[in-house]
Amino acid sequence: MRIYDIIANKRDKKELTKEEIDFFIKGVTEGTIEDYQITALLMAIYINGMNKKETSYLTMAMANSGDIADLSMINGIKVDKHSTGGVGDKTTLVVAPLVASFGVPVAKMSGRGLGHTGGTVDKLESIPGFNIAMPIEKFIENVNNINVAVVGQTGDLAPADKKLYALRDVTATISSIPLIASSIMSKKIAGGADAIVLDVKYGSGAFMKKLDDAILLAQAMVDIGEEVGRKTIAVISNMNEPLGFAIGNALEVKEAINTLKGNGPADFEKICIELSAQMLHLAGKGEVEELKTELHNRLNNGIAFEKFKEFIKAQGGDTNAIDNMDLLPKANKEISFTAENDGYISQIDAEKLGVASMLLGGGRAKKTDSIDYGVGIVLNKKVGDFAEKGSILATLFVNNEGNLNDVIELLKEAFCFSQNPCEKKPLIEKIIN
Amino acid sequence: MRIYDIIANKRDKKELTKEEIDFFIKGVTEGTIEDYQITALLMAIYINGMNKKETSYLTMAMANSGDIADLSMINGIKVDKHSTGGVGDKTTLVVAPLVASFGVPVAKMSGRGLGHTGGTVDKLESIPGFNIAMPIEKFIENVNNINVAVVGQTGDLAPADKKLYALRDVTATISSIPLIASSIMSKKIAGGADAIVLDVKYGSGAFMKKLDDAILLAQAMVDIGEEVGRKTIAVISNMNEPLGFAIGNALEVKEAINTLKGNGPADFEKICIELSAQMLHLAGKGEVEELKTELHNRLNNGIAFEKFKEFIKAQGGDTNAIDNMDLLPKANKEISFTAENDGYISQIDAEKLGVASMLLGGGRAKKTDSIDYGVGIVLNKKVGDFAEKGSILATLFVNNEGNLNDVIELLKEAFCFSQNPCEKKPLIEKIIN
Repeated sequence: MRIYDIIANKRDKKELTKEEIDFFIKGVTEGTIEDYQITALLMAIYINGMNKKETSYLTMAMANSGDIADLSMINGIKVDKHSTGGVGDKTTLVVAPLVASFGVPVAKMSGRGLGHTGGTVDKLESIPGFNIAMPIEKFIENVNNINVAVVGQTGDLAPADKKLYALRDVTATISSIPLIASSIMSKKIAGGADAIVLDVKYGSGAFMKKLDDAILLAQAMVDIGEEVGRKTIAVISNMNEPLGFAIGNALEVKEAINTLKGNGPADFEKICIELSAQMLHLAGKGEVEELKTELHNRLNNGIAFEKFKEFIKAQGGDTNAIDNMDLLPKANKEISFTAENDGYISQIDAEKLGVASMLLGGGRAKKTDSIDYGVGIVLNKKVGDFAEKGSILATLFVNNEGNLNDVIELLKEAFCFSQNPCEKKPLIEKIIN
Repeated sequence: MRIYDIIANKRDKKELTKEEIDFFIKGVTEGTIEDYQITALLMAIYINGMNKKETSYLTMAMANSGDIADLSMINGIKVDKHSTGGVGDKTTLVVAPLVASFGVPVAKMSGRGLGHTGGTVDKLESIPGFNIAMPIEKFIENVNNINVAVVGQTGDLAPADKKLYALRDVTATISSIPLIASSIMSKKIAGGADAIVLDVKYGSGAFMKKLDDAILLAQAMVDIGEEVGRKTIAVISNMNEPLGFAIGNALEVKEAINTLKGNGPADFEKICIELSAQMLHLAGKGEVEELKTELHNRLNNGIAFEKFKEFIKAQGGDTNAIDNMDLLPKANKEISFTAENDGYISQIDAEKLGVASMLLGGGRAKKTDSIDYGVGIVLNKKVGDFAEKGSILATLFVNNEGNLNDVIELLKEAFCFSQNPCEKKPLIEKIIN
């Protein structure tokens, strides 16, 4: 078998066989295929596409290219959740304890944030003492004891995907549905998931800007799940404004805690309930609508919050900072951002707010940047609200004022107004399963 | 300007601008664009194509990427001829002196052969003493004195094309019409041509196997010529059997000499007359049909042959070997290849015969191989002829019998028979101008 022929086949719109895809990924992993051949094939895949079968073969080949997390010692069906990334997306902090409170194991590997989207690991680390690094044995023990644990990604998961991603990033071949879908699914499968709930976001603050593209991506991932025997459900939601009010690590932890106590923003609570219900459904815990009622109860009767505290304590976090949130990291200064005119808020560009939060120190522009946990932005208004001239639209939590002018400029660009009330798009657009 | 955006534009089927193409070729030439980005763009060009304008910009950018031969000291319109390569293709040996005999300058840069197609330089070097290497001043002086000179390619012509070709060769992106057309035309333009006659071959012994593809390629090159101000005419001819009877360096020189004396094979003479008439027409020497009559005369009245001798002498060749062809290199042994049954010859696979000649030592499998000038194959029959069982189909001229079994196997595969007389395809299919 020769890589030349595989490139020629995809160039000519032929379906690649399992053997050809395995040969390609083996060569990528072992470094026996030249980068300039890899990118020629990636461009041919980008333009000519891949069908369900090819995409599934690619997913499994990449999943098997490195370590596979062995979670067989964990009792029960391991349902993983994955978000395609958004601004103000703190769902894992709420969903993990909620699902765990039903006795369903939540064994989550999570990443750090890069660019305008924050990472779950960064958010959890804003809780004093919280430890994201632990040996796999301890991780499994925690899940078996209290049904929930979150670790930073360990081991060499899907190294072929890492290599391909780096080459796609410099050859304009990122935005290909089969390549994105197989990249995400390969890491979930290497992470040991039995079933997967996907939180696929679209809009200005998401990777997929258009709803149609988000639906195609979600369908491709659900198809892969079916082909490779991992039941997969995708929830497609709107990221045309930030989720909830808070953007920034400790600020988002506070919002998550409030939500776990039944006092969260309506949109954020809604998506947490939806994702949790889908995960529990995949774990065999009943029908989605009935589960939603019980999930609501658990946010209001303290069960979810107690599970969260148990989870934080088990990983060394200071639960005093959970009970008294003034003990969480806090910025020195609060600056109000106010409306210049009267009007209805027609749009809040989530990506611009994500970048603004990053510029305040809440995110990383490059991997080696450090994070300032206390800073960020809390919205005072959401899309559809009326704002009077001079009223507060958002509060900035600031330690270093170096980028403040740029941040305020971004906020000015992010808020759009209209003179008439505007229709709000539904938060949850579609469930694909 | 970023190569990333240029790749993304071609990926999305956009027309590239002159500035984008210049930026790309400058980066290729200077080594500032990574190979893996070059091949991603080449694959996007392969699949999504390039229009006339883009192809012309690419041609000129590659032509200008290295040395440009300065032939301004040569008087008259420099018309170059280029063959896309075939088996038994010795047209330059006849066309160059024929055209020169009209006082039109033929300043030809020529290459060595690789694979199953022989090179004009190799053929000329089979004449004892003939020198293909000379300084540009001497080359120009010869053309001004006797109107004809042939040199091996000197200088660094179109280095960007060399680099792109090497990458295309390993990424299945050779067979793209705009890439082939711009590659050929960039070298002709860098070689100093004012006008160009293209000998575009199709069939089993040619680069383009199908007539339709040959027409597309020819049209693309004629279009480039028009866009960049080099009047270009393409003659499309059939390479489904070898041209003439002889394959192999000295054997082809002999056939060329016979043709220059009016005793050549009909098909070979016909294409030589056609190409010469088109070249002379582009040089302003009259109408094609009238020129053909005069060209015939010059093959029969000794003018063409005398010009050939003058040309060989001017470059140090032994003219005794022209007058007495027994002095040309000759193989030790002649082996007859005979028909196993009665039948009409329906096809002679030119590529297989080219490979057979190469295996005898007449061509190079790799650049560093040396050539045995005396060996090769002379056909005794052509397509349409009837062969009795036991009659000679071809004679092998052999020095080293090491590959003889493989050679005979190739000949057996090359000749196809039918029980009925078969229609012969026209030699010259089309003229595009």
